[in-house]
Amino acid sequence: MNIPVVENVLKINDQLAALNRRRLGQASICAINLIGAPGCGKTALLEATLRLLSADFRCAVLAGDLATQRDADRLAKYCPRVVQINTGKGCHLEAGHVAQALEQLNLADIDLLFIENVGNLICPVGFDVGQNYKVGIFSTTEGDDKPAKHPYIVMEADLLLLNKIDLLEHVPFDRELFEHDIRRLKPDSRLLALSARTLAGIEPWIEQVRQWKNAAPGKQ
Amino acid sequence: MNIPVVENVLKINDQLAALNRRRLGQASICAINLIGAPGCGKTALLEATLRLLSADFRCAVLAGDLATQRDADRLAKYCPRVVQINTGKGCHLEAGHVAQALEQLNLADIDLLFIENVGNLICPVGFDVGQNYKVGIFSTTEGDDKPAKHPYIVMEADLLLLNKIDLLEHVPFDRELFEHDIRRLKPDSRLLALSARTLAGIEPWIEQVRQWKNAAPGKQ
Repeated sequence: MNIPVVENVLKINDQLAALNRRRLGQASICAINLIGAPGCGKTALLEATLRLLSADFRCAVLAGDLATQRDADRLAKYCPRVVQINTGKGCHLEAGHVAQALEQLNLADIDLLFIENVGNLICPVGFDVGQNYKVGIFSTTEGDDKPAKHPYIVMEADLLLLNKIDLLEHVPFDRELFEHDIRRLKPDSRLLALSARTLAGIEPWIEQVRQWKNAAPGKQ
Repeated sequence: MNIPVVENVLKINDQLAALNRRRLGQASICAINLIGAPGCGKTALLEATLRLLSADFRCAVLAGDLATQRDADRLAKYCPRVVQINTGKGCHLEAGHVAQALEQLNLADIDLLFIENVGNLICPVGFDVGQNYKVGIFSTTEGDDKPAKHPYIVMEADLLLLNKIDLLEHVPFDRELFEHDIRRLKPDSRLLALSARTLAGIEPWIEQVRQWKNAAPGKQ
């Protein structure tokens, strides 16, 4: 009785995600879904990214959290198109959340859409929201064992980021083990290391976003 | 169609949790459920706790993770009774996981049972596993906004910990705001700040566990 319902929920979600993807594609918007644990630095990464890209692209952000609009408030300083999605007790964004949030935006005014998922390294991985690319974010302060313990984000992400490299000297973190575990799970995985706070290593990430925007619509 | 099934799952879980709690109570075991984000330091806290308590109490640990037995391997150095629970894609421990894992242990040999939940600040909060006490763990590196963004763990926890205070000088963290948000959600909330790595502030936590053990069974 349980499993068919779960499948049904996922099927409805996939249908809504396909609709989102079509709408976004028709508007030539490249959509990037950011997934990571609470405090891995998703919002800080977006602050830096918006600052560095907003001269060239019209950006928008959907910020998912259980409660508060603190992320939206932070991001509104760098971007006039921010929608906060509060999920209540919901542990991930679903395609329906994104469809509703898109109603708040004029899609003709947007080049790049960042979807900051709820802080959770597990549940958001399984829910397509209509993005073109999924980015998985780890941080040095979480420890080097997180890819091994959370293999599904490694398998599903188009790109992995290791954030907070400015704190490497202050925390126990075996970078070789971290990267080895990622390659073991997915040999062709792509990983960029950076600090959203100091901007060390940020350029390859910014360049990747530019490339994705220039390639989209296309993937998926 | 969806909601009744979810309610049903929760009802079955609650029944199993009550069974676990009864079994543990009959064996005079005090069970503590540790909930926190990936990398907040649950395993490091247990390493320190086992080291400091194992002369006085016979401890056991159930370690929940999607994959790997790395936590069990780390904890086995300090405790002969460790069971690793791998949930696959499961984002939280359920009472059934704990019931199964207890089959691996001789309950007559145990005074204190630590249940290290899957690294996730959201989903584990809603699932009773038969513990006597729930402990919510934040860490300074996750940022000061986590209680406000994750109110349910604040409401549900018997005790909150702020880990990694040794890193406070290296990260942006407004401790006043962090504590204010907690009190706003739950005025009588109890919070201890510590570093599992340097052991700064660890004594009040150890003392709390002793008190819980000496009080149990009783609560719930």
